[in-house]
Amino acid sequence: MAPAGAGLWRTLRAHQVYGANTDVGKTIVSTVLCNAVQRQKQRAAFLKPVSTGSLDEADDRHLKRYGAGTLTKCLYQFDEPVSPHIAAKEKSIQDDDLVASIHKTLSDWARTDIDFALVETAGGVHSPGPNGNSQADLYRPLRLPIVLVADSRLGGISSSISAYESLLLRGYDIQSVLLFRDEYYQNHEYLGNFFRNKSIPLVPLPAPPAKPSQTDANSQARDEEAMSAYYQQVSQESDILRLLEEMNVKNTKRIEHLEEMAGRAQDLIWYPFTQHQGMRPKDITVIDSAHGDYFQTFGSGRTDNPDSELRPTFDGSASWWTQGLGHGNPELSLSAAYAAGRYGHVMFAGTVHEPALLLADNLLKTLDNPRFTKVFYTDNGSTGMEVAIKMGLRASCDRYDWDATQEQISILGLKGSYHGDTIGVMDCAEPSTYNQKVEWYRGRGHWFDFPLVKMVDGTWKIEVPAELKAELGPDAEFGSLGSVFDLNTRLNTEAGQRYKKYIRKTIEDLVQRHGMKFGALILEPVILGAGGMLFCDPLFQRCLTDVVRDHPELFSPNASSPKAAPSWSGLPVIFDEVFTGLYRLGRPTSASFLDVHPDIAVNAKLLTGGLIPLCATVASQEIFDTFSSPEKSDALLHGHSYTAHAVGCTVAVDSLKTMSDMDGNGSWDQFKTDWSPKAADPAGSSTPEAWSVWSQRLLQDLSCAESVESVFAIGTVLSISLRDAQGGGYTSNAAKGLQQRLAIGGDQFNVHSRVLGNVLYLMSSLTSKPESLREMESMLRASLV
Amino acid sequence: MAPAGAGLWRTLRAHQVYGANTDVGKTIVSTVLCNAVQRQKQRAAFLKPVSTGSLDEADDRHLKRYGAGTLTKCLYQFDEPVSPHIAAKEKSIQDDDLVASIHKTLSDWARTDIDFALVETAGGVHSPGPNGNSQADLYRPLRLPIVLVADSRLGGISSSISAYESLLLRGYDIQSVLLFRDEYYQNHEYLGNFFRNKSIPLVPLPAPPAKPSQTDANSQARDEEAMSAYYQQVSQESDILRLLEEMNVKNTKRIEHLEEMAGRAQDLIWYPFTQHQGMRPKDITVIDSAHGDYFQTFGSGRTDNPDSELRPTFDGSASWWTQGLGHGNPELSLSAAYAAGRYGHVMFAGTVHEPALLLADNLLKTLDNPRFTKVFYTDNGSTGMEVAIKMGLRASCDRYDWDATQEQISILGLKGSYHGDTIGVMDCAEPSTYNQKVEWYRGRGHWFDFPLVKMVDGTWKIEVPAELKAELGPDAEFGSLGSVFDLNTRLNTEAGQRYKKYIRKTIEDLVQRHGMKFGALILEPVILGAGGMLFCDPLFQRCLTDVVRDHPELFSPNASSPKAAPSWSGLPVIFDEVFTGLYRLGRPTSASFLDVHPDIAVNAKLLTGGLIPLCATVASQEIFDTFSSPEKSDALLHGHSYTAHAVGCTVAVDSLKTMSDMDGNGSWDQFKTDWSPKAADPAGSSTPEAWSVWSQRLLQDLSCAESVESVFAIGTVLSISLRDAQGGGYTSNAAKGLQQRLAIGGDQFNVHSRVLGNVLYLMSSLTSKPESLREMESMLRASLV
Repeated sequence: MAPAGAGLWRTLRAHQVYGANTDVGKTIVSTVLCNAVQRQKQRAAFLKPVSTGSLDEADDRHLKRYGAGTLTKCLYQFDEPVSPHIAAKEKSIQDDDLVASIHKTLSDWARTDIDFALVETAGGVHSPGPNGNSQADLYRPLRLPIVLVADSRLGGISSSISAYESLLLRGYDIQSVLLFRDEYYQNHEYLGNFFRNKSIPLVPLPAPPAKPSQTDANSQARDEEAMSAYYQQVSQESDILRLLEEMNVKNTKRIEHLEEMAGRAQDLIWYPFTQHQGMRPKDITVIDSAHGDYFQTFGSGRTDNPDSELRPTFDGSASWWTQGLGHGNPELSLSAAYAAGRYGHVMFAGTVHEPALLLADNLLKTLDNPRFTKVFYTDNGSTGMEVAIKMGLRASCDRYDWDATQEQISILGLKGSYHGDTIGVMDCAEPSTYNQKVEWYRGRGHWFDFPLVKMVDGTWKIEVPAELKAELGPDAEFGSLGSVFDLNTRLNTEAGQRYKKYIRKTIEDLVQRHGMKFGALILEPVILGAGGMLFCDPLFQRCLTDVVRDHPELFSPNASSPKAAPSWSGLPVIFDEVFTGLYRLGRPTSASFLDVHPDIAVNAKLLTGGLIPLCATVASQEIFDTFSSPEKSDALLHGHSYTAHAVGCTVAVDSLKTMSDMDGNGSWDQFKTDWSPKAADPAGSSTPEAWSVWSQRLLQDLSCAESVESVFAIGTVLSISLRDAQGGGYTSNAAKGLQQRLAIGGDQFNVHSRVLGNVLYLMSSLTSKPESLREMESMLRASLV
Repeated sequence: MAPAGAGLWRTLRAHQVYGANTDVGKTIVSTVLCNAVQRQKQRAAFLKPVSTGSLDEADDRHLKRYGAGTLTKCLYQFDEPVSPHIAAKEKSIQDDDLVASIHKTLSDWARTDIDFALVETAGGVHSPGPNGNSQADLYRPLRLPIVLVADSRLGGISSSISAYESLLLRGYDIQSVLLFRDEYYQNHEYLGNFFRNKSIPLVPLPAPPAKPSQTDANSQARDEEAMSAYYQQVSQESDILRLLEEMNVKNTKRIEHLEEMAGRAQDLIWYPFTQHQGMRPKDITVIDSAHGDYFQTFGSGRTDNPDSELRPTFDGSASWWTQGLGHGNPELSLSAAYAAGRYGHVMFAGTVHEPALLLADNLLKTLDNPRFTKVFYTDNGSTGMEVAIKMGLRASCDRYDWDATQEQISILGLKGSYHGDTIGVMDCAEPSTYNQKVEWYRGRGHWFDFPLVKMVDGTWKIEVPAELKAELGPDAEFGSLGSVFDLNTRLNTEAGQRYKKYIRKTIEDLVQRHGMKFGALILEPVILGAGGMLFCDPLFQRCLTDVVRDHPELFSPNASSPKAAPSWSGLPVIFDEVFTGLYRLGRPTSASFLDVHPDIAVNAKLLTGGLIPLCATVASQEIFDTFSSPEKSDALLHGHSYTAHAVGCTVAVDSLKTMSDMDGNGSWDQFKTDWSPKAADPAGSSTPEAWSVWSQRLLQDLSCAESVESVFAIGTVLSISLRDAQGGGYTSNAAKGLQQRLAIGGDQFNVHSRVLGNVLYLMSSLTSKPESLREMESMLRASLV
């Protein structure tokens, strides 16, 4: 089913009516509003998506009778006066279909002369829809502005405020509140103050006439007469007319505001990683809200008769690689709110709170590295890597008795590495476009060039850089991605021997001839992200760590024997898993692809499921012990104000659990099946070494396309390297064309993507629906094949 | 009123009973539970803090009748069956008193043989208490585990889930859910699944017998008989007995868990700024939760017969200077949840969302600096300062045509500056304990020593460093803190002339004789925080910026004339207001104390009111334009994954608004009056230049104490410098004794504080209650005077 966009129309003011409870008078309130609209010579329409209860009393019938000509429609009608999830047990109504039907109905109405529409829910905000899910969740993709009908009865203050809070934490905007006046309980007084403080207008209505107690032949007529009189009176009250005008103005202002936002942003915002010269407001994507995989964007892409001013736009960079569990995930919102309510932020030097402790414990279990014992928290990948480098350098300087104030201690890494934007970790990357103009950048290291994994013309290939072919051997082809990761076999091949020899010789040369001193080995396992989605031959990374650990003598040839019984050897090995960690590539850690246990690892991005910044630098006991001393000044004197903030830790605990549950309960089996050796060979294993949410077939087809140099996919990541006559690199424009075509998109949605030079990548979350992914695959084929 | 601690007792399992709505059977459920406890030969007690309704039906009477010997108590009884805020209109019951009475009652019970207690609320979770505030907020300081009575009627699924969410977002733990079985609506089925997924047990109870319809003489007797039979049957059901056992186990486990937390933390956590050698679990403060200004700490301080296992501990460092609007602030929790629900995180390169835009706009208005036009977001003060330094260096290198890859560009600052823990901004600070052992630290700058403001022996004083007296003149005394800030007058004094001359000569010397090149002036206005709470003479900071701006020729004596029409002159002036900004010192910005408009400023900490990390680096148009070019590589290539995360921006928008409202509505008038010139001289002004939440009288008394070297207070900050025969500094232990005495605390609460060497500081939030502050002042007097 196509994702429904959020609902916002220029000519149609559409609202959803929620009740603070059942039987609070939603339909009467709807009738009052529609009646008033009609009397103003405008056209009103009323949509009851799901109705339960006897036909006679069905809400759309009520509207028909008293709505002064209001158009009414009901999508699903059940007779039993019970919750829709019980009434609908026999029928199979999918939530997505229901939402899409509402969207379509409203869009159809928007093309007519209808000015005002109400979509009425059933029962209270969390009353289950036909599929058993809460209506507040079910209807969230539409995110219509809410008319909340509060409860005027005893207890109604509480239920009204709670209902409001449940809507708010799902990202709804509550536009107005109505309820019946009850002079005894005076809920309208209390709630009027409450909502006034939140700038939400509340309008009390006179109570409707009591139902006649006797049901004789005349009673129905009398009832109808009384109701008609009631509507006639109430719908002309100045409060109601003022409210309708306000709703009208708000709809117009909301659109005007959306129209201005890009211009305002250009005035006020200094964007990250952005050259502002030549940037125009229309280059800025205006995001009204987001849900699941989709941004709801304003004015994007197609201009031909849009159904709504807002369009679903697939978040194709997983919001800079952070997104895991879907935008607007109500579970994570609640976790965040719970932690904020229980703690706020409590400072973390010398204190402990449950979420920080629980997260440390869970993270150590998730990483499953017997070396790791300690967790150090910071706020993002860059600061977490700063901590890692401080840890690593201290450990090696201590081991080798180096005085880092007197001599330069460098790091070993790979070309194209990227570890963040603070200057310390910038120094861990080779000179490049990213850092060359940063005044204080001083690259401090040696960065190996390395063989790349890619699919070219339908075949998995390891491509050795031309200038290293003499030492590392020729390019090689592989039958599957799994066989590339078969390191136990590959370590014993000639390639393995050549890699090790080359690495060893290079280090020897750097240390002995050039006098370099190395303090740490830093790797992004498997894929170097910001460097251009470079898929490094895992054998090369494995050989690099093996050589470093097996040959400590390389790093201090003249020193006496290193200190006793080290758990780490040669150099501390730091894995930057900020991007690759926590299921991004399909496994809890990407270190496991290399079968290497680093001494220090950094995780961020997916740690909170994609909600808020948090980072954890995890280290071995021996690294930790390096900082132990009677002197305070020997400690790791690092810490940010919000270190281990409770909101982040709580959300992270929930995210790790959700991701681990998905890993365990077969959520990704459909994808894995496509990548299993069994798919090609019935005798093969059914569990692939490596798999992706992107299909093998897509890769094969794209890799044969004329404009494509190579492709790969692993986990949630798809990378398409486009041919560029100018040679590619960060400043290449080769991928712009494809990016623009995705931004135009298809009938159902368009795609927001990021490029790295001549590479366009797409990244899903861990909960992306196969239908969305297949639809994007169609767009890619249509563009490239 | 003394703050009540959260409630947790070893021998007494105390719970609060909340209803999903009014009339859901809270009292019947309470009776079932108490009855069952009593039948198990344990003792139950029932507390109804506020009861409304006719005396006959009062809930504690019901408990007395059917509770099988349950002890009952009611604190306030009203006859009208309306919401307590209406019933109690005449009486003045303070929320704090009510909470304290409950706490005292439970503590008294805990000292007897009572095993189990229920505190029953009135109506639904948000039904107003006697003072008109929501019960869920009012009772929050106790944070008792919750027994939620769900609603079995039509609509009850929705109201039960919403009530649960309202409790959750206030940080309550919902321990169990009970409701009546209704085979028609089957709410127990749906809610059973719902709560099972959250690991919360739900127990359905048989519906109680219907009330007899006729009220004859026998009906009451029949009713009582039926109810007795009902309780006799239900309270023996295995589900109930299992639930009670579970509640028992949970109470025990919670305490065991709290007992283990410090040890577990020592095993798993690598703490910020902490030397772990010699650290014992008992040095770690275990924080169960926090509310307002108080942590609820376990096992802290007094061991003499505690009322509860948890004790209120004043958050005396404002959680590392972040706290502004109180822990567990429900408004901020809701803001965070709303943003999470509406957006999650949406990536921020080339996109815009409302909270980021609104925050940029509001922040620019708050800072009220005509130079500022652009806002760049990062995650914390350290990364924000990295951005600031990249901005500043680029602007000066561009202006003076320096090639920073070929020569060292340094910064100008003050001794004792601190700008964060990432290596780039560490390089902006002079060599010190903090950075001297960081392997890659290379201080790049010149740092001026400067005169300090302090109160000594009751008099405000400016103390000139001994080695600068020849150039800057002698120490000076001032009649008030306000007169220290009277810069218009002071600039024209001899001191002003001497300061400027000295600064100019020093820079000249550094540039011309030592060949240094400077790229930016970086200041923490008024107070240098982490450097040891150093209160710099504002005249010196003003003179420094004046000299830098008035004498551009100082920085490039040999260059041709600088580029045309600069808005900045000499050097870009960067103000690090991470600590001092946003009302921390009583004003929206501390730059205003100097009457200086910096070119770049960094705000963080208080930006989110103290909830989650977020930072904004704000810059002038001309600084921004420096990065404008046709080349992408000239852009500020900096950005973190969660840049401008919607949750942080939304919370910040709300926090800024709340703080600005407080500033405007006289919230701090009581403090300001104490500091107004009028207080000393009836003819004086009533608006002080500078003021503090800490009293002038306290400062005078402390400053005369024998062990005190000097003191100062401004805004929320109180700093006490203790005499240290060894000379003070970061590694001094002189303040440890005072810190320990505060940690023992008084009858009402104890105080968690941080020291910086021989300086102990206390910092309130912006919403701290005067009574709490005065109580701490008493503790300080008792310790020092």
